[in-house]
Amino acid sequence: MTKLYVAQGACSFGAHVAARELGLPIEFIKVPLRTPESPIHKVNPLGRVPTLVSDSGEVITENGAILPFLADLKPEAGLAAPAGSVERAQIQEWIGFLNSDIHGAYKPVNRPNLFHADEEVQKSIREGGIARLRDLIRIVQRKLEGKTWAVGERFTVADAYLGVFLRWLPRAGIEIGSEFPGLAAYLERYNARESVKAAAAFEAA
Amino acid sequence: MTKLYVAQGACSFGAHVAARELGLPIEFIKVPLRTPESPIHKVNPLGRVPTLVSDSGEVITENGAILPFLADLKPEAGLAAPAGSVERAQIQEWIGFLNSDIHGAYKPVNRPNLFHADEEVQKSIREGGIARLRDLIRIVQRKLEGKTWAVGERFTVADAYLGVFLRWLPRAGIEIGSEFPGLAAYLERYNARESVKAAAAFEAA
Ligand SMILES: N[C@@H](CCC(=O)N[C@@H](CS)C(=O)NCC(=O)O)C(=O)O
Ligand SMILES: N[C@@H](CCC(=O)N[C@@H](CS)C(=O)NCC(=O)O)C(=O)O
Repeated sequence: MTKLYVAQGACSFGAHVAARELGLPIEFIKVPLRTPESPIHKVNPLGRVPTLVSDSGEVITENGAILPFLADLKPEAGLAAPAGSVERAQIQEWIGFLNSDIHGAYKPVNRPNLFHADEEVQKSIREGGIARLRDLIRIVQRKLEGKTWAVGERFTVADAYLGVFLRWLPRAGIEIGSEFPGLAAYLERYNARESVKAAAAFEAA
Repeated sequence: MTKLYVAQGACSFGAHVAARELGLPIEFIKVPLRTPESPIHKVNPLGRVPTLVSDSGEVITENGAILPFLADLKPEAGLAAPAGSVERAQIQEWIGFLNSDIHGAYKPVNRPNLFHADEEVQKSIREGGIARLRDLIRIVQRKLEGKTWAVGERFTVADAYLGVFLRWLPRAGIEIGSEFPGLAAYLERYNARESVKAAAAFEAA
Protein backbone atom coordinates (compact mmCIF):
# COMPACT_ATOMS: atom_id res chain seq x y z
CA MET A 1 0.00 0.00 0.00
CA THR A 2 1.18 3.54 -0.78
CA LYS A 3 2.33 5.33 2.38
CA LEU A 4 2.39 9.08 2.88
CA TYR A 5 4.36 10.62 5.74
CA VAL A 6 2.98 13.91 7.03
CA ALA A 7 3.52 16.22 9.99
CA GLN A 8 0.92 18.36 11.65
CA GLY A 9 0.25 21.57 9.73
CA ALA A 10 3.44 21.22 7.69
CA CYS A 11 3.82 21.70 3.94
CA SER A 12 2.86 18.03 3.59
CA PHE A 13 -0.75 19.08 4.18
CA GLY A 14 -1.23 19.64 0.43
CA ALA A 15 -0.18 16.10 -0.47
CA HIS A 16 -2.28 14.81 2.42
CA VAL A 17 -5.35 16.61 1.07
CA ALA A 18 -4.63 15.46 -2.48
CA ALA A 19 -4.32 11.85 -1.35
CA ARG A 20 -7.65 12.02 0.47
CA GLU A 21 -9.33 13.55 -2.59
CA LEU A 22 -8.45 10.41 -4.53
CA GLY A 23 -10.24 8.03 -2.19
CA LEU A 24 -7.58 5.36 -2.79
CA PRO A 25 -6.21 3.06 -0.11
CA ILE A 26 -3.27 5.15 1.08
CA GLU A 27 -1.81 4.85 4.56
CA PHE A 28 -1.12 8.13 6.32
CA ILE A 29 1.68 8.22 8.86
CA LYS A 30 1.99 11.23 11.12
CA VAL A 31 5.53 11.95 12.29
CA PRO A 32 7.23 14.58 14.42
CA LEU A 33 9.89 16.76 12.76
CA ARG A 34 13.36 17.95 13.74
CA THR A 35 13.99 15.18 16.23
CA PRO A 36 16.42 12.32 15.60
CA GLU A 37 13.94 9.78 17.00
CA SER A 38 11.35 10.56 14.35
CA PRO A 39 10.59 7.56 12.10
CA ILE A 40 10.88 9.93 9.13
CA HIS A 41 14.66 9.53 9.22
CA LYS A 42 14.27 5.84 8.41
CA VAL A 43 12.62 6.61 5.07
CA ASN A 44 14.03 10.02 4.10
CA PRO A 45 17.65 10.86 4.95
CA LEU A 46 16.72 14.55 4.95
CA GLY A 47 14.08 13.90 7.61
CA ARG A 48 11.45 15.91 5.79
CA VAL A 49 7.80 15.64 4.88
CA PRO A 50 6.03 15.02 2.63
CA THR A 51 7.64 11.67 1.87
CA LEU A 52 5.81 9.06 -0.14
CA VAL A 53 6.60 5.38 -0.29
CA SER A 54 5.05 3.85 -3.37
CA ASP A 55 3.28 0.52 -3.58
CA SER A 56 6.51 -1.02 -4.84
CA GLY A 57 8.61 0.54 -2.07
CA GLU A 58 10.12 3.46 -3.97
CA VAL A 59 10.71 6.55 -1.85
CA ILE A 60 9.59 9.82 -3.43
CA THR A 61 10.19 13.19 -1.82
CA GLU A 62 9.41 16.80 -2.77
CA ASN A 63 6.00 18.35 -3.17
CA GLY A 64 6.77 19.06 -6.82
CA ALA A 65 7.04 15.31 -7.42
CA ILE A 66 4.56 13.87 -4.93
CA LEU A 67 1.60 16.03 -5.92
CA PRO A 68 1.57 15.04 -9.62
CA PHE A 69 2.50 11.45 -8.75
CA LEU A 70 -0.55 11.18 -6.50
CA ALA A 71 -2.78 12.74 -9.16
CA ASP A 72 -1.49 10.25 -11.73
CA LEU A 73 -2.50 7.31 -9.50
CA LYS A 74 -6.07 8.05 -10.60
CA PRO A 75 -6.09 10.26 -13.69
CA GLU A 76 -9.89 10.10 -13.95
CA ALA A 77 -10.18 12.08 -10.71
CA GLY A 78 -8.85 15.06 -12.65
CA LEU A 79 -6.45 16.31 -9.96
CA ALA A 80 -3.87 16.88 -12.70
CA ALA A 81 -4.08 16.67 -16.51
CA PRO A 82 -2.36 14.63 -19.23
CA ALA A 83 1.38 15.05 -19.74
CA GLY A 84 2.00 17.48 -22.56
CA SER A 85 -1.16 19.51 -21.99
CA VAL A 86 -1.05 23.22 -21.25
CA GLU A 87 -3.30 22.55 -18.27
CA ARG A 88 -0.74 20.25 -16.70
CA ALA A 89 1.90 22.91 -17.22
CA GLN A 90 -0.35 25.45 -15.50
CA ILE A 91 -0.78 23.11 -12.55
CA GLN A 92 2.99 22.59 -12.32
CA GLU A 93 3.48 26.34 -12.67
CA TRP A 94 1.35 26.92 -9.58
CA ILE A 95 3.18 24.19 -7.69
CA GLY A 96 6.55 25.61 -8.73
CA PHE A 97 5.67 29.15 -7.73
CA LEU A 98 4.30 28.02 -4.37
CA ASN A 99 7.22 25.69 -3.75
CA SER A 100 10.07 28.02 -4.61
CA ASP A 101 8.76 31.52 -4.07
CA ILE A 102 5.99 31.27 -1.48
CA HIS A 103 7.37 28.45 0.69
CA GLY A 104 10.77 30.14 0.39
CA ALA A 105 9.33 33.46 1.50
CA TYR A 106 8.12 31.87 4.74
CA LYS A 107 11.68 30.96 5.70
CA PRO A 108 12.84 34.37 6.98
CA VAL A 109 9.41 34.77 8.58
CA ASN A 110 9.31 31.49 10.48
CA ARG A 111 13.03 30.90 10.94
CA PRO A 112 14.91 34.21 10.88
CA ASN A 113 17.47 32.58 13.18
CA LEU A 114 18.75 30.65 10.13
CA PHE A 115 19.97 33.93 8.68
CA HIS A 116 21.55 35.71 11.63
CA ALA A 117 22.41 35.06 15.28
CA ASP A 118 21.48 38.48 16.67
CA GLU A 119 17.90 38.76 17.92
CA GLU A 120 17.40 42.38 16.93
CA VAL A 121 18.60 41.58 13.43
CA GLN A 122 16.28 38.56 13.35
CA LYS A 123 13.33 40.82 14.11
CA SER A 124 14.06 43.01 11.16
CA ILE A 125 14.72 40.03 8.89
CA ARG A 126 11.31 38.70 9.89
CA GLU A 127 9.67 42.07 9.19
CA GLY A 128 11.26 42.29 5.75
CA GLY A 129 10.22 38.72 5.08
CA ILE A 130 6.60 39.49 5.93
CA ALA A 131 6.64 42.43 3.51
CA ARG A 132 7.94 40.21 0.69
CA LEU A 133 5.41 37.50 1.54
CA ARG A 134 2.62 40.08 1.30
CA ASP A 135 3.78 41.05 -2.20
CA LEU A 136 3.71 37.41 -3.26
CA ILE A 137 0.26 36.81 -1.78
CA ARG A 138 -0.94 39.81 -3.75
CA ILE A 139 0.28 38.00 -6.88
CA VAL A 140 -1.62 34.88 -5.82
CA GLN A 141 -4.78 36.94 -5.36
CA ARG A 142 -4.39 38.47 -8.81
CA LYS A 143 -3.79 35.07 -10.43
CA LEU A 144 -6.97 33.71 -8.86
CA GLU A 145 -9.19 36.62 -9.90
CA GLY A 146 -12.45 35.41 -11.42
CA LYS A 147 -11.56 31.76 -10.89
CA THR A 148 -13.03 29.13 -8.61
CA TRP A 149 -9.82 27.13 -8.37
CA ALA A 150 -6.22 27.69 -9.42
CA VAL A 151 -6.58 26.55 -13.03
CA GLY A 152 -10.31 27.09 -13.49
CA GLU A 153 -13.42 25.27 -12.37
CA ARG A 154 -11.76 22.05 -11.23
CA PHE A 155 -9.97 21.45 -7.91
CA THR A 156 -6.49 20.14 -8.67
CA VAL A 157 -3.32 19.31 -6.77
CA ALA A 158 -2.33 22.97 -7.27
CA ASP A 159 -5.23 23.91 -4.99
CA ALA A 160 -4.48 21.18 -2.48
CA TYR A 161 -1.05 22.78 -2.13
CA LEU A 162 -2.07 26.45 -2.34
CA GLY A 163 -4.42 26.07 0.61
CA VAL A 164 -1.48 25.19 2.86
CA PHE A 165 0.19 28.56 2.44
CA LEU A 166 -3.04 30.50 2.88
CA ARG A 167 -3.66 28.60 6.12
CA TRP A 168 -0.18 29.64 7.27
CA LEU A 169 -0.80 33.39 6.79
CA PRO A 170 -1.88 34.09 10.39
CA ARG A 171 1.55 32.85 11.56
CA ALA A 172 3.01 35.78 9.66
CA GLY A 173 0.48 38.16 11.20
CA ILE A 174 -1.33 38.53 7.89
CA GLU A 175 -5.08 38.76 8.27
CA ILE A 176 -6.57 37.28 5.15
CA GLY A 177 -10.15 38.53 5.73
CA SER A 178 -9.24 42.21 5.83
CA GLU A 179 -6.13 42.24 3.65
CA PHE A 180 -6.98 39.74 0.97
CA PRO A 181 -10.75 39.53 0.64
CA GLY A 182 -10.38 37.90 -2.77
CA LEU A 183 -8.58 35.02 -1.12
CA ALA A 184 -10.84 34.66 1.89
CA ALA A 185 -13.65 33.17 -0.19
CA TYR A 186 -11.19 30.80 -1.84
CA LEU A 187 -9.91 29.64 1.53
CA GLU A 188 -13.46 29.10 2.75
CA ARG A 189 -14.15 26.85 -0.23
CA TYR A 190 -10.91 25.02 0.48
CA ASN A 191 -11.60 24.53 4.17
CA ALA A 192 -15.10 23.27 3.43
CA ARG A 193 -13.86 20.26 1.45
CA GLU A 194 -14.23 16.86 3.11
CA SER A 195 -10.62 16.02 2.25
CA VAL A 196 -9.36 19.12 4.03
CA LYS A 197 -11.49 18.50 7.11
CA ALA A 198 -10.39 14.87 7.30
CA ALA A 199 -6.71 15.72 6.82
CA ALA A 200 -6.80 18.44 9.48
CA ALA A 201 -8.60 16.16 11.95
CA PHE A 202 -6.11 13.34 11.35
CA GLU A 203 -3.13 15.63 11.85
CA ALA A 204 -4.57 17.21 15.00
CA ALA A 205 -5.33 13.85 16.61
CA MET B 1 6.59 28.52 -33.07
CA THR B 2 7.35 27.89 -29.40
CA LYS B 3 9.33 30.79 -27.89
CA LEU B 4 11.61 30.55 -24.89
CA TYR B 5 12.79 33.69 -23.09
CA VAL B 6 16.15 33.39 -21.41
CA ALA B 7 18.70 35.68 -19.77
CA GLN B 8 22.44 35.25 -19.76
CA GLY B 9 23.57 32.73 -17.15
CA ALA B 10 20.24 32.88 -15.32
CA CYS B 11 18.23 29.92 -14.01
CA SER B 12 16.63 29.78 -17.46
CA PHE B 13 19.80 28.09 -18.68
CA GLY B 14 18.36 24.66 -17.79
CA ALA B 15 15.28 25.15 -19.93
CA HIS B 16 17.48 26.57 -22.67
CA VAL B 17 19.67 23.47 -22.63
CA ALA B 18 16.65 21.16 -22.51
CA ALA B 19 15.08 22.91 -25.50
CA ARG B 20 18.28 22.55 -27.53
CA GLU B 21 18.52 18.86 -26.61
CA LEU B 22 15.17 18.32 -28.35
CA GLY B 23 16.27 19.70 -31.70
CA LEU B 24 12.80 21.12 -32.31
CA PRO B 25 12.14 24.48 -33.95
CA ILE B 26 12.07 26.69 -30.85
CA GLU B 27 12.87 30.39 -30.96
CA PHE B 28 15.20 31.61 -28.22
CA ILE B 29 14.86 35.20 -27.11
CA LYS B 30 17.55 36.68 -24.90
CA VAL B 31 16.34 39.45 -22.62
CA PRO B 32 17.87 41.64 -19.93
CA LEU B 33 16.47 41.34 -16.39
CA ARG B 34 15.47 43.87 -13.73
CA THR B 35 14.90 46.72 -16.10
CA PRO B 36 11.46 48.04 -16.97
CA GLU B 37 12.37 48.28 -20.66
CA SER B 38 13.00 44.55 -20.96
CA PRO B 39 10.63 42.84 -23.40
CA ILE B 40 10.13 40.14 -20.74
CA HIS B 41 7.55 42.38 -19.01
CA LYS B 42 5.33 42.19 -22.09
CA VAL B 43 4.97 38.41 -21.74
CA ASN B 44 5.44 37.77 -18.01
CA PRO B 45 4.05 40.28 -15.51
CA LEU B 46 6.68 39.12 -13.00
CA GLY B 47 9.45 39.98 -15.47
CA ARG B 48 11.22 36.67 -14.92
CA VAL B 49 12.89 33.97 -16.97
CA PRO B 50 12.44 31.27 -18.03
CA THR B 51 9.17 32.14 -19.73
CA LEU B 52 7.80 29.95 -22.48
CA VAL B 53 5.19 30.94 -25.02
CA SER B 54 3.66 27.85 -26.55
CA ASP B 55 2.83 27.33 -30.20
CA SER B 56 -0.74 28.34 -29.44
CA GLY B 57 0.30 31.47 -27.56
CA GLU B 58 -0.10 30.21 -23.98
CA VAL B 59 2.38 31.70 -21.52
CA ILE B 60 4.02 29.20 -19.17
CA THR B 61 6.37 30.25 -16.40
CA GLU B 62 8.36 28.42 -13.71
CA ASN B 63 11.12 25.92 -14.23
CA GLY B 64 9.04 23.24 -12.54
CA ALA B 65 6.48 23.57 -15.34
CA ILE B 66 8.61 24.51 -18.34
CA LEU B 67 11.15 21.68 -18.01
CA PRO B 68 8.59 18.81 -18.14
CA PHE B 69 6.51 20.69 -20.72
CA LEU B 70 9.53 20.89 -23.03
CA ALA B 71 10.34 17.21 -22.47
CA ASP B 72 6.74 16.28 -23.32
CA LEU B 73 6.99 18.07 -26.69
CA LYS B 74 9.08 15.08 -27.84
CA PRO B 75 8.62 12.15 -25.47
CA GLU B 76 10.78 9.89 -27.62
CA ALA B 77 13.82 12.03 -26.77
CA GLY B 78 13.54 10.64 -23.24
CA LEU B 79 14.18 13.91 -21.41
CA ALA B 80 11.37 12.99 -19.03
CA ALA B 81 9.30 9.82 -18.60
CA PRO B 82 5.61 8.90 -18.83
CA ALA B 83 3.19 10.45 -16.34
CA GLY B 84 2.59 8.05 -13.48
CA SER B 85 6.01 6.42 -13.66
CA VAL B 86 8.38 6.42 -10.71
CA GLU B 87 11.07 7.73 -13.03
CA ARG B 88 9.05 10.83 -13.82
CA ALA B 89 8.56 11.37 -10.11
CA GLN B 90 12.31 11.10 -9.58
CA ILE B 91 12.92 13.69 -12.28
CA GLN B 92 10.36 16.03 -10.69
CA GLU B 93 11.92 15.34 -7.29
CA TRP B 94 15.26 16.60 -8.55
CA ILE B 95 13.65 19.64 -10.14
CA GLY B 96 11.72 20.39 -6.95
CA PHE B 97 14.76 20.08 -4.72
CA LEU B 98 16.84 22.27 -7.02
CA ASN B 99 14.06 24.81 -7.46
CA SER B 100 13.05 25.24 -3.83
CA ASP B 101 16.11 24.33 -1.80
CA ILE B 102 19.13 24.98 -4.00
CA HIS B 103 17.91 28.01 -5.94
CA GLY B 104 16.48 29.34 -2.66
CA ALA B 105 19.83 28.86 -0.95
CA TYR B 106 21.49 31.13 -3.51
CA LYS B 107 19.26 34.03 -2.49
CA PRO B 108 21.10 35.09 0.69
CA VAL B 109 24.37 34.44 -1.15
CA ASN B 110 23.67 36.55 -4.25
CA ARG B 111 21.24 39.07 -2.80
CA PRO B 112 21.83 39.45 0.94
CA ASN B 113 20.54 43.03 0.59
CA LEU B 114 17.04 41.60 0.27
CA PHE B 115 17.26 40.49 3.89
CA HIS B 116 18.84 43.45 5.65
CA ALA B 117 19.93 47.03 4.89
CA ASP B 118 23.15 47.03 6.93
CA GLU B 119 26.26 46.04 4.99
CA GLU B 120 28.01 44.31 7.86
CA VAL B 121 24.91 42.24 8.51
CA GLN B 122 24.69 41.44 4.80
CA LYS B 123 28.20 40.06 4.88
CA SER B 124 27.34 37.64 7.63
CA ILE B 125 24.04 36.68 5.97
CA ARG B 126 26.02 35.87 2.84
CA GLU B 127 28.53 33.80 4.83
CA GLY B 128 25.78 31.79 6.52
CA GLY B 129 24.12 31.33 3.16
CA ILE B 130 27.29 29.91 1.66
CA ALA B 131 27.55 27.42 4.52
CA ARG B 132 23.98 26.22 3.96
CA LEU B 133 24.55 26.02 0.22
CA ARG B 134 27.61 23.85 0.84
CA ASP B 135 25.49 21.45 2.92
CA LEU B 136 22.99 21.18 0.11
CA ILE B 137 25.64 20.62 -2.55
CA ARG B 138 26.96 17.81 -0.37
CA ILE B 139 23.50 16.23 -0.59
CA VAL B 140 23.57 16.60 -4.38
CA GLN B 141 26.95 14.90 -4.52
CA ARG B 142 25.64 12.03 -2.40
CA LYS B 143 22.52 11.63 -4.54
CA LEU B 144 24.65 11.41 -7.69
CA GLU B 145 27.08 8.84 -6.34
CA GLY B 146 27.64 6.03 -8.81
CA LYS B 147 25.38 7.62 -11.41
CA THR B 148 26.14 9.12 -14.79
CA TRP B 149 23.12 11.41 -14.72
CA ALA B 150 20.58 12.43 -12.08
CA VAL B 151 18.21 9.50 -12.54
CA GLY B 152 20.63 6.99 -14.05
CA GLU B 153 22.18 6.52 -17.45
CA ARG B 154 19.99 8.94 -19.39
CA PHE B 155 20.36 12.73 -19.52
CA THR B 156 17.00 14.26 -18.55
CA VAL B 157 15.59 17.70 -17.84
CA ALA B 158 16.70 17.19 -14.22
CA ASP B 159 20.30 17.27 -15.46
CA ALA B 160 19.69 20.23 -17.76
CA TYR B 161 18.58 22.11 -14.63
CA LEU B 162 21.13 20.72 -12.16
CA GLY B 163 24.03 21.91 -14.31
CA VAL B 164 22.90 25.51 -13.84
CA PHE B 165 23.46 25.49 -10.11
CA LEU B 166 26.80 23.74 -10.36
CA ARG B 167 27.93 26.38 -12.86
CA TRP B 168 26.91 29.03 -10.32
CA LEU B 169 29.10 27.65 -7.52
CA PRO B 170 32.14 29.86 -8.22
CA ARG B 171 29.91 32.92 -7.57
CA ALA B 172 29.58 31.63 -4.03
CA GLY B 173 33.30 31.09 -3.76
CA ILE B 174 32.86 27.32 -3.81
CA GLU B 175 35.57 25.52 -5.73
CA ILE B 176 34.00 22.42 -7.17
CA GLY B 177 37.26 20.72 -8.20
CA SER B 178 38.76 20.64 -4.71
CA GLU B 179 35.61 20.57 -2.58
CA PHE B 180 33.33 18.34 -4.60
CA PRO B 181 35.43 16.06 -6.78
CA GLY B 182 32.42 13.78 -7.25
CA LEU B 183 30.61 16.63 -8.95
CA ALA B 184 33.50 17.89 -11.04
CA ALA B 185 33.32 14.93 -13.42
CA TYR B 186 29.56 15.35 -13.68
CA LEU B 187 29.95 19.02 -14.56
CA GLU B 188 32.57 18.17 -17.17
CA ARG B 189 30.15 15.75 -18.82
CA TYR B 190 27.49 18.45 -18.69
CA ASN B 191 29.66 21.17 -20.15
CA ALA B 192 30.79 18.87 -22.97
CA ARG B 193 27.27 18.47 -24.38
CA GLU B 194 26.55 20.23 -27.66
CA SER B 195 23.34 21.66 -26.22
CA VAL B 196 25.21 23.26 -23.32
CA LYS B 197 27.89 24.71 -25.55
CA ALA B 198 25.31 26.11 -27.97
CA ALA B 199 23.18 27.59 -25.18
CA ALA B 200 26.18 29.22 -23.51
CA ALA B 201 27.42 30.67 -26.81
CA PHE B 202 23.97 32.04 -27.64
CA GLU B 203 23.61 33.69 -24.24
CA ALA B 204 27.10 35.18 -24.33
CA ALA B 205 26.64 36.69 -27.80
N1 LIG C 1 11.30 21.31 -0.89
C1 LIG C 1 10.65 20.42 0.04
C2 LIG C 1 10.61 21.03 1.41
C3 LIG C 1 10.12 20.08 2.44
C4 LIG C 1 10.19 20.68 3.81
O1 LIG C 1 10.96 21.62 4.05
N2 LIG C 1 9.37 20.16 4.76
C5 LIG C 1 9.39 20.67 6.11
C6 LIG C 1 7.97 20.79 6.67
S1 LIG C 1 7.09 22.16 5.94
C7 LIG C 1 10.16 19.69 6.98
O2 LIG C 1 9.97 18.48 6.89
N3 LIG C 1 11.06 20.21 7.83
C8 LIG C 1 11.79 19.42 8.78
C9 LIG C 1 13.26 19.60 8.66
O3 LIG C 1 13.71 20.32 7.73
O4 LIG C 1 13.97 19.04 9.49
C10 LIG C 1 9.25 20.10 -0.44
O5 LIG C 1 8.57 21.00 -0.94
O6 LIG C 1 8.81 18.94 -0.33
N1 LIG D 1 10.63 30.15 -9.32
C1 LIG D 1 11.06 30.70 -10.57
C2 LIG D 1 12.17 31.68 -10.36
C3 LIG D 1 12.52 32.45 -11.63
C4 LIG D 1 13.58 33.50 -11.33
O1 LIG D 1 13.73 33.96 -10.19
N2 LIG D 1 14.31 33.92 -12.37
C5 LIG D 1 15.32 34.93 -12.21
C6 LIG D 1 16.56 34.58 -12.99
S1 LIG D 1 17.47 33.26 -12.21
C7 LIG D 1 14.77 36.26 -12.76
O2 LIG D 1 14.18 36.29 -13.81
N3 LIG D 1 14.96 37.34 -12.01
C8 LIG D 1 14.57 38.66 -12.41
C9 LIG D 1 13.67 39.33 -11.43
O3 LIG D 1 13.25 38.70 -10.43
O4 LIG D 1 13.35 40.51 -11.66
C10 LIG D 1 11.51 29.60 -11.52
O5 LIG D 1 12.15 28.67 -11.06
O6 LIG D 1 11.18 29.66 -12.72
